[in-house]
Amino acid sequence: MFIKKPSLKPGEKHIMIVGGGFAGLNAAKRLADRPGVQITLIDQRNYHLFQPLLYQVATAGLNPADIAVPIRAQFSKARNISVHMGTVHSIDLKNKFVRVGEPPIELGFDYLILATGALHSYFGKYQWEDFAPGLKTIEQALEIRRRILSAFEYAENETNPAVQAALLTFVIVGGGPTGVELAGSIADISRTVLVKDFTHINPASARIVLIEAGDRVLASFPQALSEHALRDLNKLGVEVKTSSRVNEIDAEGVRIGDLKIAARNVFWAAGVQATKLSKTLGVELDRAGRVKVRSDFSIPGFPDTFAVGDLAHFEMDDGKPLPGLAPAAIQAGRHAAENILASIAGKPRKPFRYVDKGQMATIGKRKAIAVLGKLKLTGYLAWLSWLFIHILYLIGFKNRLVVFFEWSWSYIFSKRGSRLITSKDWKLGA
Amino acid sequence: MFIKKPSLKPGEKHIMIVGGGFAGLNAAKRLADRPGVQITLIDQRNYHLFQPLLYQVATAGLNPADIAVPIRAQFSKARNISVHMGTVHSIDLKNKFVRVGEPPIELGFDYLILATGALHSYFGKYQWEDFAPGLKTIEQALEIRRRILSAFEYAENETNPAVQAALLTFVIVGGGPTGVELAGSIADISRTVLVKDFTHINPASARIVLIEAGDRVLASFPQALSEHALRDLNKLGVEVKTSSRVNEIDAEGVRIGDLKIAARNVFWAAGVQATKLSKTLGVELDRAGRVKVRSDFSIPGFPDTFAVGDLAHFEMDDGKPLPGLAPAAIQAGRHAAENILASIAGKPRKPFRYVDKGQMATIGKRKAIAVLGKLKLTGYLAWLSWLFIHILYLIGFKNRLVVFFEWSWSYIFSKRGSRLITSKDWKLGA
Repeated sequence: MFIKKPSLKPGEKHIMIVGGGFAGLNAAKRLADRPGVQITLIDQRNYHLFQPLLYQVATAGLNPADIAVPIRAQFSKARNISVHMGTVHSIDLKNKFVRVGEPPIELGFDYLILATGALHSYFGKYQWEDFAPGLKTIEQALEIRRRILSAFEYAENETNPAVQAALLTFVIVGGGPTGVELAGSIADISRTVLVKDFTHINPASARIVLIEAGDRVLASFPQALSEHALRDLNKLGVEVKTSSRVNEIDAEGVRIGDLKIAARNVFWAAGVQATKLSKTLGVELDRAGRVKVRSDFSIPGFPDTFAVGDLAHFEMDDGKPLPGLAPAAIQAGRHAAENILASIAGKPRKPFRYVDKGQMATIGKRKAIAVLGKLKLTGYLAWLSWLFIHILYLIGFKNRLVVFFEWSWSYIFSKRGSRLITSKDWKLGA
Repeated sequence: MFIKKPSLKPGEKHIMIVGGGFAGLNAAKRLADRPGVQITLIDQRNYHLFQPLLYQVATAGLNPADIAVPIRAQFSKARNISVHMGTVHSIDLKNKFVRVGEPPIELGFDYLILATGALHSYFGKYQWEDFAPGLKTIEQALEIRRRILSAFEYAENETNPAVQAALLTFVIVGGGPTGVELAGSIADISRTVLVKDFTHINPASARIVLIEAGDRVLASFPQALSEHALRDLNKLGVEVKTSSRVNEIDAEGVRIGDLKIAARNVFWAAGVQATKLSKTLGVELDRAGRVKVRSDFSIPGFPDTFAVGDLAHFEMDDGKPLPGLAPAAIQAGRHAAENILASIAGKPRKPFRYVDKGQMATIGKRKAIAVLGKLKLTGYLAWLSWLFIHILYLIGFKNRLVVFFEWSWSYIFSKRGSRLITSKDWKLGA
């Protein structure tokens, strides 16, 4: 078998990173221009996506390009990083190569950082996806945007009141940050943005239902903040149903036990699973398909291979898994990179210590909850912190300017910049 | 048959406008808040598109939302305009109704303005569309963008030099403004934007070929300006082949007589035809399917029905057809609206007189040609005029700001804001 590698100088090592999300991108940045290493960063997309703001694209607040940057452009000046766009089909940990691209080629590595992230899980109910898209990719955000905006347009033309009501009912399954932010933002767009523009319907009357299987929304936050968020959601007119498990989703709506909710718009924000690649590794996975890793992020039995970010199951000292948050992924990516450099230099690796930067979630346009260290924030102040931090962590000065401008504009004029219903089909046909 | 109409006050007339492009939108604006008329504006999209800048979306310079505005938002304050998103399937001119939507309903009118525009024509070779998308819609612009950016990515990974060369060859068929602007912009992005970001290929070596069947590019401009544009294209490294007719397009490239050009990227900017709706009317059409109209834009035999914009064939006093330019469509839309108001008021209609505002086309980032009245401009000055006029005519203060910002940014830093390869498929699959 011919396994391709980049041309290396004597003594140089080839580090391969699969995945250009928070973990992979920051691993590559840490390795940029370090002596003795050549890096190949592989991603199936040509861009790094700032996933925490994806719901803003789904609700017509931001353009896809505002929250995504070409991976290549991040490494224009790094002389030891080569970016390779392609899908990795499988990985041979023992013989140290990946199969990538179409037609597939074998690419060899000395060290590997796996960071392909997570996708939604429908708990085996794949057929639900058609009726309830998730929100993990730009394509899904545009699909959700298309559905939301189209629903108001169809309702405007509809004469059957029952159908009209179903068109104006939005159900979000899953009360984590994504579900709460999506529900709040749909409430916001219907109450303040669209309300001026229709003749036959009142967009502000749209029904928005947030369904959570657990006993409270935003369960990863302290109880008091969850309760605050619940009150904020209610003020925005979002119906929150906790301790409610969805039993069925179809074209007519959702069913929770005996309760049927007629809804033409259902969105999925419940449950994640690691990307499929983890199954090709032949190593121990947790129930969500995540790779169980050691305290240095290496995969047991394969000390030169690391898994980080949402793909990895990393157990902290308290026995809890490292949370699936951007700061944790960034820290993990950097740490794996440093451990590789340590091994190459013949130094011992360091176990990972998570620095908890806190977490936050917005509820509509002016409310949020946030835990920042020991500080607990709610309401307007939390929202301002959220705003500041999200603009700060966006990659690229230009994106920061653009998002700041878009948000200021939307805040002042209650308008949204991207209210376009685009379709999937580009062909005109015969 | 039940034909629906909006509820009208006694004496009020229902004016229907089909199409929210330059002609239809400006007809509606002219009729907004005029007494005695209710207007229904129908479009299959929810947005008005500034088509002259579509090539900027195709070449990653602008976001779709930068050149499109929701039609509804234009008429939030007009009390007599109702916007209806839906596809018009056919029109019964005699019984004065349109069939629109899914399932179709019949909507009646007293007066009708048809403004559904034009699409590309492949001269019967429908199978070429797969290999050579045209540039009339946002979806097509995103498809072209996807192909351009993907070609460089695939070339970066390709080891076969012949395939690599074909991947880096871009053929544009049609030397009108769209073809010239697309070719110039692809040259620009490959020479200045992408050139910094690749390891294995030199994007600046991309071959860009512009094919024109006539004996010069931009044939609607004076001969001297065409020649100037040709020199500018050559300076950018665009090969221009005039008097060349494409005989075949397939996955491998294009054939012109005996000459084969191996190219994985072919884009179509040759030939337009009126939208299909014109064929349902049962009236006289020209060879491009456009409706032949009288001097007041009414359709012969149907004095209450008007066709304007690219859907109409309007013969000027010199026997030439009204050109397919935005200013002509805007003037036509307004004129038809005024003639309807005149008829309702019992006044005579006025024949249309075209006020020639000139025309312009850009060649890459700093060059253009322009005819403005008796003024002929080339080079940098023409480009500045082009910039100023295109920003001025964009709808919405915000879009003007955003486009001004994007262009300044791109001009200063040689970067493009929208370098995302997005796909059509949003589903993750099982």
